[in-house]
Amino acid sequence: LGLALAAAVALAAWRRRRPRPLREVLFFPSRPSCTEALLAEAAEPGAAVLPCPCPLPPGDCSLSRLLRLLLSARRSLDICLFAFCSPQLGRAVRLLHRRGVRVRVVTDAQYMGLRGSQIGLLRHVGIQVRHDQEDGYMHHKFAIVDRKMLITGSLNWTTQAIQNNRENVLVVEDAEYVEPFLDEFERIWEKYNPVNYRCF
Amino acid sequence: LGLALAAAVALAAWRRRRPRPLREVLFFPSRPSCTEALLAEAAEPGAAVLPCPCPLPPGDCSLSRLLRLLLSARRSLDICLFAFCSPQLGRAVRLLHRRGVRVRVVTDAQYMGLRGSQIGLLRHVGIQVRHDQEDGYMHHKFAIVDRKMLITGSLNWTTQAIQNNRENVLVVEDAEYVEPFLDEFERIWEKYNPVNYRCF
Repeated sequence: LGLALAAAVALAAWRRRRPRPLREVLFFPSRPSCTEALLAEAAEPGAAVLPCPCPLPPGDCSLSRLLRLLLSARRSLDICLFAFCSPQLGRAVRLLHRRGVRVRVVTDAQYMGLRGSQIGLLRHVGIQVRHDQEDGYMHHKFAIVDRKMLITGSLNWTTQAIQNNRENVLVVEDAEYVEPFLDEFERIWEKYNPVNYRCF
Repeated sequence: LGLALAAAVALAAWRRRRPRPLREVLFFPSRPSCTEALLAEAAEPGAAVLPCPCPLPPGDCSLSRLLRLLLSARRSLDICLFAFCSPQLGRAVRLLHRRGVRVRVVTDAQYMGLRGSQIGLLRHVGIQVRHDQEDGYMHHKFAIVDRKMLITGSLNWTTQAIQNNRENVLVVEDAEYVEPFLDEFERIWEKYNPVNYRCF
C-alpha cells in the first residue's frame, strides 16, 4: 500500500510539474485606464518613464492585460483582424516588429483603408500585411503569440470596441484550439499572397 | 512494485473515465449544404422526412455541426448575439423553446430590428429577449448550452457570415471559460431587465 501511495503521489507531482495551459477570459468594455507607462516601459525597459499628462488613471484593465499578453511575444505574432484601429495596440505591434519578432498581419480589404486604421502605419515600418479579395468579410479577430498562445473573441482592435462595446476575448494555450488556428492562419496567409491579387 | 503499478493503472483508468471536455473549432464560410433533414428530424424525431426540393447537397458542414450542438440542449440555452438573422439557427432555437428548453436571448438594440432579423419571430413564440440600451454595441456572439457548453467566436448568426465570411467558432466545456461567460450572461441579463429600460 505504501508503494502504491508513493506511485500515486509521484504521478500527481509529475502532472503538477507540467506547466498548466493558460486559460483566461477578458471582457470589455475595458475600464478607462492609461497604458502609457506600460508601452513606454516595453519600448525601453528600465528607462525613466515620464508621467503621462492624460487624465486617465493608471492601473490594470482588459486592454492592459491584452497588451501585456501580446508584448510577451518573443519570436512571432500572427494576427488576423477584421478591423485594426486602436493606437495602443498598433504601437505594441510596431514595437514587437522593432524588437525582431516576426509579425504577420491579415486583414479585411474593405476595412483596412478606413480613417484611423493602423494598417498603413504597420506597413510603413515594414510589417507584412495581406488582405482578402473576397466578397465576404475577413471577419476573424485573433492573434497567435509564438505559435502557442491564441487570443481570440468578438473584439475588433478598435477604440470603439475596447471602450464602448460588450466584447469578449479568450486566451488559450490548449493545442486542440491553437493548432487549427495556426493552420487557418497559414491557409489564409498563402491564399492572400499578393501574387494571387487580381487587378481590376 | 506490483502494487505501485496497479495504483498507477487504476489512477489512469479513473482519469480516462472522467468525460473529456469537448474542445472543438469550427471555421466558416460553411460549405453550402442542405440542413432541412437535420431540422425536420429534430422537430419530429422518427417522422418520415420528405426530400428537400432545394438544390443544395446534403452532408455535414460547419453550420450543421453548430445546429447539432445547439439542438443537444436539454434544459437551457442562453444566447448573447449582436446580430441574429439566420433562418436555420432561428428555427433551431424556436424548436428548443417548443421542446421546453429554457431559452433566453440578449441582443443589440440597434441590430435587432434589421430586415431579416429573427428576434421578432423568437418573441412571437414567447421566447424572452432582452437588449442593451447603451451607446456601444452588444457585440458578443456566444451561446451556452445547459450551462456547461460554451459556443463563442467571431460569427454573428447571419446567412452572410455563415456563407460568405471567414469566421471562427470555439466549442468549449472547460470551466475556466464557461463560468466567466455564465457570470457575464447573468450580469447582462439583469442589467437589460426591461424594468431598467428608459423611455425616450
